Amino acid sequence: MSKKILVLGGDGFCGWPTSLHLSALGHEIHIVDNLSRRAIDQELGADSLTPIASMEERLSAWIASGGDPIAFHNLDVAADYFGLRDLIEEVKPDTVIQFAEQRAAPYSMKDEVCKVYTVNNNISASHNVLAAIADLRLDTHVVHLGTMGVYGYDGDGLEIPEGYLPVQVKGDNGEVFDREILYPTNPGSVYHMTKSMDQLLFQFYAKNDQMRITDLHQGIVWGTQTDETRRDAALINRFDYDGDYGTVLNRFLMQAAVGHPLTVHGTGGQTRAFIHIQDTVQCLALAVENPPERGERVKILNQMTETHRVRDLAQMVADATGAEVAMVDNPRNEAAENDLRVSNKGFIALGLEPMTLENGLLTETLEISQKYADRCLMNMIPCVSTWTDAQNPGTVSNIIAAE
Amino acid sequence: MSKKILVLGGDGFCGWPTSLHLSALGHEIHIVDNLSRRAIDQELGADSLTPIASMEERLSAWIASGGDPIAFHNLDVAADYFGLRDLIEEVKPDTVIQFAEQRAAPYSMKDEVCKVYTVNNNISASHNVLAAIADLRLDTHVVHLGTMGVYGYDGDGLEIPEGYLPVQVKGDNGEVFDREILYPTNPGSVYHMTKSMDQLLFQFYAKNDQMRITDLHQGIVWGTQTDETRRDAALINRFDYDGDYGTVLNRFLMQAAVGHPLTVHGTGGQTRAFIHIQDTVQCLALAVENPPERGERVKILNQMTETHRVRDLAQMVADATGAEVAMVDNPRNEAAENDLRVSNKGFIALGLEPMTLENGLLTETLEISQKYADRCLMNMIPCVSTWTDAQNPGTVSNIIAAE
Repeated sequence: MSKKILVLGGDGFCGWPTSLHLSALGHEIHIVDNLSRRAIDQELGADSLTPIASMEERLSAWIASGGDPIAFHNLDVAADYFGLRDLIEEVKPDTVIQFAEQRAAPYSMKDEVCKVYTVNNNISASHNVLAAIADLRLDTHVVHLGTMGVYGYDGDGLEIPEGYLPVQVKGDNGEVFDREILYPTNPGSVYHMTKSMDQLLFQFYAKNDQMRITDLHQGIVWGTQTDETRRDAALINRFDYDGDYGTVLNRFLMQAAVGHPLTVHGTGGQTRAFIHIQDTVQCLALAVENPPERGERVKILNQMTETHRVRDLAQMVADATGAEVAMVDNPRNEAAENDLRVSNKGFIALGLEPMTLENGLLTETLEISQKYADRCLMNMIPCVSTWTDAQNPGTVSNIIAAE
Repeated sequence: MSKKILVLGGDGFCGWPTSLHLSALGHEIHIVDNLSRRAIDQELGADSLTPIASMEERLSAWIASGGDPIAFHNLDVAADYFGLRDLIEEVKPDTVIQFAEQRAAPYSMKDEVCKVYTVNNNISASHNVLAAIADLRLDTHVVHLGTMGVYGYDGDGLEIPEGYLPVQVKGDNGEVFDREILYPTNPGSVYHMTKSMDQLLFQFYAKNDQMRITDLHQGIVWGTQTDETRRDAALINRFDYDGDYGTVLNRFLMQAAVGHPLTVHGTGGQTRAFIHIQDTVQCLALAVENPPERGERVKILNQMTETHRVRDLAQMVADATGAEVAMVDNPRNEAAENDLRVSNKGFIALGLEPMTLENGLLTETLEISQKYADRCLMNMIPCVSTWTDAQNPGTVSNIIAAE
């Protein structure tokens, strides 16, 4: 059944291909975005490796490629509450997908201005959506993109469940209480912290206003293209490779394409969860089609398909390309080595058939990075956002020197 | 030892007497406030029962009564990040006390504007403090006023610990993991939700930046005067009795003073934690004197001295005054009846000698409400902020009619 869907942040790396995929499935799509991702590129002097067309060109190309028209509303979801509210009142969407958050952990740790911006923007954006839907008394389903990072990476051997953790609590008279709680969060950056805080917003509005809410804790996304973004050059998705917005596997593929050593932070023993962008858009479609019941608690799903150690990823890319691997100081404040086991039963039960790193997509992404290698700004490759004071002295120059 | 202390929100009901008490103890006090509490009174058409002098009059009266000078900085902690940062850089405080939050649950639920304001103001204010101290690399101790409401009022018989809950988690291979987690929050209003979110801010900055942070989960405050605010009429503290900002016991005392029935919401079976304002300021002084070590987790203390059912409080006031008790519909979305057991071992160990309801302070507060009864705005007494849509139809008029 066709739904009316607002995609907040629909110009971004996940938002854009999700908008196209949902449009291709027959839904009525309204993209809401203030184009902040493009503005941050300007601020950083960075750019997507792939050339990104203007929103007007993108939407025209979508229609030219056979897609249904997609509406675009240039609006700051965090700063313009009443603009958002009026739009929701006008469209009366079945679903609002909330992608409109600053999404890079390194950027969120860059300096005080980036920290303050990330907190104010992300929290206000998510809360404005909830306050507007509650005030308008709509039965709109809110789908939010969270992150696996809210769980932290303690790695004590426990499989990470989907959002909720059954625990036993001992009373002072020896009695034992069984409770199922929101998994206690342990975010590793200001960015991840905002996603932990978002969880409390959702918990409250689901309880107090019986709002239908789905929170997707996504792994690290790799890849660039989806079935829809491949239709036309003007539809191509972002490929970020800079130290702030580039995610680890795409960074390795880019580094290989330009003959740069693959820069592994620390020992590379960090285990992380991954998902290909094509699976991301499929997960979003499944989430949209399967809202929780009204009055149910927040539906939390882990949106990831596999886990890998960072150094194993680097080796995989090195083996495929002949690139060298270089260990550099880790600018992040995180455990050097961790295990990670994650449940993703929810999406598997909904019918997701995961792609994996081995099936040729690595080659496709490598081809894209080779094709656009002449657009690469070499000075944007190092990651220079440091997490803590103790790491600051000399660290930035060390990393640059090491790379 | 004398400390330099910024009191953010030092014009408010808790902030003002705390500022005077810490000044009387010999600390150097800087009040930072944008006088928003006074502005909200204007917005609501409400006012403190006790006449509140201007900040200039208050500070002059403090000096005239023998106090040390207190500095005042008119600054919006939430909106003016660099103003706050520059002030912290200039003063280099040993302690920052963060009271600068919208603190009324009913006001936070009044309408969409109040919800958005409460979230944006409270989260930005707390985070701005942390981001500034982290960026300036200061070893400043942050003391924050939280609320018992973050724990929720489930009342399953478990004594509420001070912030952290030991739990057992079963692994999928049958092994059992012992963990001590932040008590899973269950806030009952947008206001309480912001205090739950604040906890995640503190957890992150204590971990990532080794910041010293104390979070005080306070019960419902009653009473008006402290040893310091009694020194001069111009130093008198706020007495709020309106449906949004008045707290339950003060509201009962005020209602008794003006011959209004004591309005109990629902069955009055809600059990809540209480503390007298004189104990509040003593707790703040103890918290300031006893910061956690650098690198320690957030120190969480329950700042309350006794628990009571609301209907028992009403009966106590009725017995003392001859007032009638009237049961009215509950505008809040909360359990009708609950038990509540709370640990407050932390402050007891630090030397707090709690006052209780029985020792004459009830009489003093009653005398204040009688003395200023002619300033009472009768139409401000009902609580008309309703929590959920389902409660809206007719509820507001029912309450007014019932009162």
